[in-house]
Amino acid sequence: MSLRRLASPLVALLLTLSAATSVPAATAVPASTPTPAAPTPFTPAVLSEARALRERALVDDTAYELVRSLTNEVGPRLAGTPGDAAAVAWAIRTLNNLGFQNVRAEPVTVPRWVRGEARAEIVAPWPQPLVATSLGGSVGTAPEGVEAEVVPVTTFDDLKSMPRERVEGRILFFTFRMERSRDGEGYGKAAAARGRGAAEAAKLGAVGMVMRSAGTSTSRTPHTGAQRWSDGIPPIPAMALSNPDADLLEQQLAAGKPVRLRLVSTARWDGETESANVVGEIPGEGLRDEIVLLGAHLDSWDLGTGAHDDATGVGIITAAVKLAAEAKPRPKRTLRVVFYANEEFGLSGARAYAAAHADAIERHVLGMESDLGAFQPFGLTARVAPDRLPLVRAMQSVVESLGIKYLGTEASGGADLGPLRELGMPVLDLWTDAAPYFDLHHTANDTFDKVDPTLVRQNVAAYAAIAYLAAHAQGGFGRLPKVERPVGPAVAPATTPPSTR
Amino acid sequence: MSLRRLASPLVALLLTLSAATSVPAATAVPASTPTPAAPTPFTPAVLSEARALRERALVDDTAYELVRSLTNEVGPRLAGTPGDAAAVAWAIRTLNNLGFQNVRAEPVTVPRWVRGEARAEIVAPWPQPLVATSLGGSVGTAPEGVEAEVVPVTTFDDLKSMPRERVEGRILFFTFRMERSRDGEGYGKAAAARGRGAAEAAKLGAVGMVMRSAGTSTSRTPHTGAQRWSDGIPPIPAMALSNPDADLLEQQLAAGKPVRLRLVSTARWDGETESANVVGEIPGEGLRDEIVLLGAHLDSWDLGTGAHDDATGVGIITAAVKLAAEAKPRPKRTLRVVFYANEEFGLSGARAYAAAHADAIERHVLGMESDLGAFQPFGLTARVAPDRLPLVRAMQSVVESLGIKYLGTEASGGADLGPLRELGMPVLDLWTDAAPYFDLHHTANDTFDKVDPTLVRQNVAAYAAIAYLAAHAQGGFGRLPKVERPVGPAVAPATTPPSTR
Repeated sequence: MSLRRLASPLVALLLTLSAATSVPAATAVPASTPTPAAPTPFTPAVLSEARALRERALVDDTAYELVRSLTNEVGPRLAGTPGDAAAVAWAIRTLNNLGFQNVRAEPVTVPRWVRGEARAEIVAPWPQPLVATSLGGSVGTAPEGVEAEVVPVTTFDDLKSMPRERVEGRILFFTFRMERSRDGEGYGKAAAARGRGAAEAAKLGAVGMVMRSAGTSTSRTPHTGAQRWSDGIPPIPAMALSNPDADLLEQQLAAGKPVRLRLVSTARWDGETESANVVGEIPGEGLRDEIVLLGAHLDSWDLGTGAHDDATGVGIITAAVKLAAEAKPRPKRTLRVVFYANEEFGLSGARAYAAAHADAIERHVLGMESDLGAFQPFGLTARVAPDRLPLVRAMQSVVESLGIKYLGTEASGGADLGPLRELGMPVLDLWTDAAPYFDLHHTANDTFDKVDPTLVRQNVAAYAAIAYLAAHAQGGFGRLPKVERPVGPAVAPATTPPSTR
Repeated sequence: MSLRRLASPLVALLLTLSAATSVPAATAVPASTPTPAAPTPFTPAVLSEARALRERALVDDTAYELVRSLTNEVGPRLAGTPGDAAAVAWAIRTLNNLGFQNVRAEPVTVPRWVRGEARAEIVAPWPQPLVATSLGGSVGTAPEGVEAEVVPVTTFDDLKSMPRERVEGRILFFTFRMERSRDGEGYGKAAAARGRGAAEAAKLGAVGMVMRSAGTSTSRTPHTGAQRWSDGIPPIPAMALSNPDADLLEQQLAAGKPVRLRLVSTARWDGETESANVVGEIPGEGLRDEIVLLGAHLDSWDLGTGAHDDATGVGIITAAVKLAAEAKPRPKRTLRVVFYANEEFGLSGARAYAAAHADAIERHVLGMESDLGAFQPFGLTARVAPDRLPLVRAMQSVVESLGIKYLGTEASGGADLGPLRELGMPVLDLWTDAAPYFDLHHTANDTFDKVDPTLVRQNVAAYAAIAYLAAHAQGGFGRLPKVERPVGPAVAPATTPPSTR
């Protein structure tokens, strides 16, 4: 997943509150509504079947086997690589095999960036190699690398008060350490340095940037992720150090002697290429033109096999829709899965889908995304028309047995659903434990062996029951106010390839 | 540490028994003697001071700061590298600064092996990169690498029943998985494949060898370690895969299609060079010619900074001797620390020390080593003259409050003390929790951030009290029967540089 979902201070606050187990959900949720006096918006038959569906999902390994297949038979699938193309082919084949209809690849243009090799070493006072990886979008160095003194700074915000003469000609080192927590607090702060730290350092004349990984792993497996650049700033190479390597660099700095670092990188940009969003659906019976959209992203970072980010999401939504489609009474609305292209490196697929389907936006009744791995679910938030919240409360009651509490109205839909939400599509967020996620996220350790089939099933159970109910919900979820900015490529591109090389 | 200590089936059995907490030590220890009726072999003043010393050590961070210093200011120190030379200089400087006497470097010839780069990738059926590292002593490949079909086999022993036609022209893959346990069970089985697996595979015509890492880490940080070759076998490249990468390779094999692997390595041998054992001591008062030897090894593997293997050992024995030397009454015997050269890659220092000090072997009253990291101590074993066991029981009673039980007479002294033990020197083993050790051992994750100062202090307390008591023990510990084989370079070299390239 990208930064968007956890970047909202309101969401962070909400989650901080909800993480205190002794706080009842009603207390933690300023926007919660009282239980409606109106009759339940679902028929008893549908509610009963949703519960049965939830139970069936708890003993079904379709999703887990999809995760195994995608990580084993495709593996890393960074946008624009052969793995990305293999993933698109895998997705089409898989959805067809599972009986989805209207399966198609919708073209998406994606940037192509080549990681190459990255080496970082402390040159003085005590030479030692460091384990580092280039940040996504970093430029490379000259073959002999760049060597300079290191200047530490804690966060991206702290950089603002650094005078140019402290930074110029040096390698900037962001030291902020993300702590482990259920709500992923600290990721936003760490990822701010990753996204824009090098660009701001470059403005101050830095010749390179390194950062402590924006993750909680104690392993020497650094954390990659996308940078953001604006045109006109000559780019500088940027790398993440694993937490143990950042510790070592801080230890040497603590001795009070000048610390010199050498960075060597062969990272480079390689134009653009074609990828695709893969879409498939199970047509509804009765309200076939109305769509309940479940999203996940098909691309991954290249260091691991993208198991939790986001093969689990692909597996979970696919299995959830398949199981929901088999329930009786059949879903009235169409259940659509969208496997987005290039979430990680610019949300290309999200923007392309929104642009291609803008005319049909009114038919997108509700959206949900799975992009926080397959960990313990604990909460549901909803951004729907206020008068439709009773529907959500009724849906939550069906998944309460999974440990899922209603946590209010602060929902984003996730990174890939953002553009659709801004066009008015209501969204739900399923919240899951982010603590183990950020041990693995964007590192080489995001691999299949870390996926727990029991937790996958719990997520499928939640998505299946909720999607099934959404497909039956009388009157839908209303519309959200449109955000007045153009959709399409101009919507907050996460990464602009630097124009200078 | 090397394989030796955990390889004994008797020790493994003993530890398996002792790991069951409900089994009293007396039941688990066939060789235990009844509590002696004889008067205690230590004066009340010495016993009292040993207890006070133990308590002082529990609030002393000398060892922890030495570990910090060695890992930060030297870092990786594979035999024959600049880091190795820096470590020798560090050790001499450090021992002199701490007031040790007769500090000296005793020359040791060590082999020089260069890791270079290692790449492994699955070529078919589903191409994926793997994280791998060359085994210590591996030869490299041709620049284009070696590509062949993979043949799995579980353990080194299973290889014996493989027909040549199954292996010839292929890459052999040892799949045995070491489980996590306090006694390090399974390491011997895994390390057997590491040491001799490639040589035996080469005899059957294999063109390469890969193995699941001989460690328990779930991180993509493969486990290195020394190979053993006999002259006359043309060597083949050999690598370890991290556990997640071995899982992936097994997943692809499980599909039943031929799996092809490509290995590329620039590993090479580079002759021999000089290193040194570093020796320092605190002379005794009264029995100055008699030596209580505490050993650890100064070298490390190159992937991490050798924090638990064996900077902690260096720190622990150094701090223990320093603290013991400050106790009153002063130690009667001389307390000597030996920082061995090149334990990891052939026990060069252990053999050189035994050869250089063979004439003085009778003066080596007792030896102890610290080479299992700094984890929770739980037991003490002793190989001493049987009539001296009451001394050991009295010593154990002083450290019982640290959770250290008497676990019998199966003691090896550890890898570096083996040659001295075979010459007749009695030895004690302090047993510590091996479960976390084998998560880190020989991997890139063996770094200072994994060192817990509380556990370091507990180890120092145990070694300090025991060493202090050993320096006062009336009548010493007797002698062990000599093992009739020549000492010096001919004693079981762990690695013979392949003669064919």
